[in-house]
Amino acid sequence: MSENHLNLIDLNDYPVSFWNEIIELGHKIRCAPQDYASKLSGKIMATLFYEPSTRTQMSFQTAMLRLGGSIIGFDNPSTSSVAKGESLKDTTKIVSSYADVLVIRHPIAGAAKAAALTADCPVINAGDGGHLHPTQTLTDLLTLREEKGRLDNLTIGLCGDLKNGRTVHSLVKAMSCYKNNKFVFISTESLKLPSYIKDVLAVNGSEYKEVSNLEDAIGELDVLYMTRIQRERFASEQDYQRQKDVYVLDSFKMLKAKRDMIVMHPLPRVDEITNEVDKDPRAMYFKQAQYGMYVRMALILTIITNATHRSKLLFGKEYKVSCPNSKCITNCEHYLPHSFVGVGDNLICEFCDERTLNS
Amino acid sequence: MSENHLNLIDLNDYPVSFWNEIIELGHKIRCAPQDYASKLSGKIMATLFYEPSTRTQMSFQTAMLRLGGSIIGFDNPSTSSVAKGESLKDTTKIVSSYADVLVIRHPIAGAAKAAALTADCPVINAGDGGHLHPTQTLTDLLTLREEKGRLDNLTIGLCGDLKNGRTVHSLVKAMSCYKNNKFVFISTESLKLPSYIKDVLAVNGSEYKEVSNLEDAIGELDVLYMTRIQRERFASEQDYQRQKDVYVLDSFKMLKAKRDMIVMHPLPRVDEITNEVDKDPRAMYFKQAQYGMYVRMALILTIITNATHRSKLLFGKEYKVSCPNSKCITNCEHYLPHSFVGVGDNLICEFCDERTLNS
Amino acid sequence: MSENHLNLIDLNDYPVSFWNEIIELGHKIRCAPQDYASKLSGKIMATLFYEPSTRTQMSFQTAMLRLGGSIIGFDNPSTSSVAKGESLKDTTKIVSSYADVLVIRHPIAGAAKAAALTADCPVINAGDGGHLHPTQTLTDLLTLREEKGRLDNLTIGLCGDLKNGRTVHSLVKAMSCYKNNKFVFISTESLKLPSYIKDVLAVNGSEYKEVSNLEDAIGELDVLYMTRIQRERFASEQDYQRQKDVYVLDSFKMLKAKRDMIVMHPLPRVDEITNEVDKDPRAMYFKQAQYGMYVRMALILTIITNATHRSKLLFGKEYKVSCPNSKCITNCEHYLPHSFVGVGDNLICEFCDERTLNS
Repeated sequence: MSENHLNLIDLNDYPVSFWNEIIELGHKIRCAPQDYASKLSGKIMATLFYEPSTRTQMSFQTAMLRLGGSIIGFDNPSTSSVAKGESLKDTTKIVSSYADVLVIRHPIAGAAKAAALTADCPVINAGDGGHLHPTQTLTDLLTLREEKGRLDNLTIGLCGDLKNGRTVHSLVKAMSCYKNNKFVFISTESLKLPSYIKDVLAVNGSEYKEVSNLEDAIGELDVLYMTRIQRERFASEQDYQRQKDVYVLDSFKMLKAKRDMIVMHPLPRVDEITNEVDKDPRAMYFKQAQYGMYVRMALILTIITNATHRSKLLFGKEYKVSCPNSKCITNCEHYLPHSFVGVGDNLICEFCDERTLNS
Repeated sequence: MSENHLNLIDLNDYPVSFWNEIIELGHKIRCAPQDYASKLSGKIMATLFYEPSTRTQMSFQTAMLRLGGSIIGFDNPSTSSVAKGESLKDTTKIVSSYADVLVIRHPIAGAAKAAALTADCPVINAGDGGHLHPTQTLTDLLTLREEKGRLDNLTIGLCGDLKNGRTVHSLVKAMSCYKNNKFVFISTESLKLPSYIKDVLAVNGSEYKEVSNLEDAIGELDVLYMTRIQRERFASEQDYQRQKDVYVLDSFKMLKAKRDMIVMHPLPRVDEITNEVDKDPRAMYFKQAQYGMYVRMALILTIITNATHRSKLLFGKEYKVSCPNSKCITNCEHYLPHSFVGVGDNLICEFCDERTLNS
Repeated sequence: MSENHLNLIDLNDYPVSFWNEIIELGHKIRCAPQDYASKLSGKIMATLFYEPSTRTQMSFQTAMLRLGGSIIGFDNPSTSSVAKGESLKDTTKIVSSYADVLVIRHPIAGAAKAAALTADCPVINAGDGGHLHPTQTLTDLLTLREEKGRLDNLTIGLCGDLKNGRTVHSLVKAMSCYKNNKFVFISTESLKLPSYIKDVLAVNGSEYKEVSNLEDAIGELDVLYMTRIQRERFASEQDYQRQKDVYVLDSFKMLKAKRDMIVMHPLPRVDEITNEVDKDPRAMYFKQAQYGMYVRMALILTIITNATHRSKLLFGKEYKVSCPNSKCITNCEHYLPHSFVGVGDNLICEFCDERTLNS
C-alpha cells in the first residue's frame, strides 16, 4: 500500500497547527493571488466526482487553474464508462498514474480513504457521503479568520438541522479546538446536536447552550451559521407549519443582531435566508464561497509541493467482523481490509468511523 | 446591484461603432492569432450552459483557450447539482466570484440579463431561449467583412423560416444600420418576416422585397443566408410536399448565382443545403463557424480588459404588473424586479422585450 | 477532400519504422517529461467521444495537457446538441476549424476515417466500434519495449476471449511484424483466434500454438496478455461453470510463471485477474495504463508537428454496391463514397474492412 502521500481525508488526521498553516496560506494567496499564478504550472489535478456536486467541483477546478495547473476528470459517472463495474481501486490506480493530485467525491463513507490506500498520488476528500467534507470546514475557518480577524473568543450560533448536518458537526469540533469559543445551538427539539459532538465540547472545555428560537438568540452572536431544515425532517407537518418561520433569517431578525455579526451558510440555500438579507453587508455566504476557492488553492499547493511526505492511513488492525454501516465503502469494495481501531469494548471502523462492539 | 461591468446581453445596448470595434479586432486576431495567444493568461471563463449547445460552447471555449485563458463550467444541468433548486442568482453570484467572465446559455428569455444584475464579473449572453443570441450576429458581421470586404452596399437574400428565426431577425436589424443594404426575403407566405422587423427597416430607410422562390431571386444576391424550415412549420403536409424543394439550395440553383455571391448558414443544417454545395468555393458556412471563434476572441478580450467599464442594465422602472410572457425569466425567478420601459401606452419588459398594455 | 494531414486511423497505414519512431519518442518522453512540457503550448485538441470511454479520454487529455496544450470536446453525445441530427461531416468540419487535432471515438466502424476525409486538421482514431483502436496497440508496444527491453524474440501468451477481442487481434498482427516472436493462444474451443489472423501469422512466418489451459502454458511465457471472457460468450452456462476458473489469473498460477514474465491487460478488468496479483511486481497492467499516456504524448506531438504531411486516405475506387456491414459508417452517413479495394474476386470496404463479393 502506498501510504506515503500527504492526503487530506479527515481534518482530524492533522494537528491544529496544520489547519492554521493552510488558513494562513489561504490568507496570503487571497492578498496577492498573482504571486501564486504559476506555482503549479505543468501539474494536473483529476476530479473524480462519483456524484455530481457542481459547485464543489468548480471551486476545486478554479483553485487549480488559478495556480497555473490543469484539470481532468468526470462529474457524472452514470454516463461514464467508469461506472461499468470497475472497482474504485482500479480507477483510482489508473487516474493517479496520470495526475498529480486526485480530488474525490463519492456517495459512500470512507471512499476517499479507500482511494488513498492505493493511489500513486495524494488524495483530497471532497465529500464522502454524509461522513466528512474537510474542505468545507477549512472554508469556514478561513472565512472566520478573514471576516472576524480571529478563530478564538467568538460566540457562534448554529441554526437549523443540527442533527444531520455534517458541515455543522465538523465546524463545531474544529472551533472547539480554539480558545474561549462559545456555542449557541438553535434548533427544534428533534433536530438537536448529537450527544457525541457535545462530548467533544465537554472534553475541550467549550461552553455551549441549546435554544429553540433564532430571534431570541441572535443578539449575542458574533457569527450566525445558518443551515437548511428539510421539510421532511420536522417531527410532523403540523410542527413544520408552526415552526418553519422560526428558523428563517430575514431582515427583521437581522435588526436584532450585532452590527459586526456575520452570517454564514455552506450553500446552496433554499429559503432559510430571504433574498433581502443578501444586501446586508453582514451577509457573508457568497464571499464564503470565494474563500473556499482560496483555501482550496492553499490546500492543493501544500499537498502537491509536499507530495512525498510520509503519512500512515490505517493505524488499527484487521478483524474478521464487517462494518455494520451498510453505507461504508468496505461493504461495497470487497478487497478492502476490515480495519478497526479498538476503543474500550468498541471497534471503530477506520473508513467510516462507525462503532461496533468487539464481540 | 452590480451593474458596473461591460456585459454583452443585447447588441442594441451598444452603438454601431462598438460592433465595428469588435469586428475590426476579430479581423486583426484572424490575421495574427499568435499576437493574442497569451493576452488572457491567468484569466478564467465560466460557461454556464443551462441547455446543451455543444457547438456554441466549444466556440467560446476555444476562443478563451486561444487567448491563453482557462475554462470551467457545466453543459448539462439536468445531471448537475445546479439544477437542484438553486436560484439563477445564487449560482451566478458564486461562479462569478471564481471566474473573470461568465458565458450563459439558458432556455428562458432574459436569463442572461438577470444573471448580469448580480454577477461579480461581466456576463456574455450565449443565447436566451428564442430571444437573443448576439454573438451569432457578430459572427455573421465578421464573415461579411472578411468575405465581402464591406458591411454596406450589399444585396442580402435571406431564405427559409423568416418568421421564427431569431438569427435572421438580429442580422436584418443589424445590417439595416449600415448604408445602402438591400434585402430580399425568400419564404412561404406563412413564414414571412414579422412586421415589427419591417418597421425597423422602414425607420432605417432600407429597401427590401419579399419573394417566394429562391431560384428566381438568387441571381441578384451578393449574399445568400440560408436557414432551415422545420417540416411542421409549413402550413400543411400538402404544402410541405409541394414547396420543400423550393427552399433547398443545390448545385443547380448555385449555377444561377453570381460568381462572388457567398452562402451563409448559422448551422446546424439538415437538408436545406445539399452536400454537393459544400465543395463550391462560394459555400462559406464552415468558414463562418471559424469566424465565430475569432469574433468571440475579440469580444472576450474586449470585455475582460474593460471589465470595470460602467454600464447600466435597467433603465425603466418597477411596476406592479407581471410580464405576460410565460417564458420570461421574471416569471421563473421571483426575486427579480418587474422592470418595464414605457413606450406610448405600452410597457416593454426589460428582460424579454415583450410588450404589454400599461393599464 | 482534405487528405493532406498525418492522421492515425489504422496502424497498418504506416510501416513498422513509423511505429518504432512513436515508441522511441514515447520512451524519451517517459525518461524526461519536463523536456516536453511546453512543446504544444497554444495548441488545442478536441476529443469527440460519440460513446463514453472515460479512461481513454482522460489518457488523451492528460497527454495533451502534459505537452502544454489545451482541450475541448464532449463525452456524452446523448445530452449534447451534436446528437441532434447533424452529420459527422458537419460536426467534424466545424470542430476541426477550432482545433489542431481531433481525437474521435465512435461506436460505428470507419467513423474516424470518415471524419478524416473532410477534417481541416489531423484525426486520431480512439476506437471505432469493434474495428480498430490503434493507440491501445501502441500502448502495448511501449509497455513491452520498456518492461522487456525489446519487441522481438518474445514468447507471448494471450488468454481469454481471442475470438472477439479487437485489442488481441491488433497486438498479434503488430507483434508478428517483429522477428522471432512466438505466440501461445489460450482460450476455449469456441473463443479461438479467427483464422484470418492466423493467416497473417503464416504470411509473416510467426510460430504459434493453441492451448486450452492457462496453468499448463504459463511457465514458458515472457509475456501474459490477459483479457476478459464475458459470461455470455461461453458456449453454455455449464461450460461457464466448468471453465471459468481456468482463465482466471491468481497468485497460485503466478507461482508457475517465469520470474521476469510480465502480466498485461488492456483494462478494465472484472475478475479475470484476482486482486492479490496486483501486489506481484510482475503485474504490469496499471503501469501499462501510464505507458498509454506517454505513447499518446508521442503520437500527438508527432502528428501536430507534422500536421501538413501528405497522405492519402482512400486508395480504392467507388462502386455502386453498398458495404454489407450494417455497422459500417457508410451505411449511416450517406454522403460517403462507397470506396472499395479489389482483392481477387472480393471487394474490401475502405472504411470498415468488411469483405464482399464483386459481383
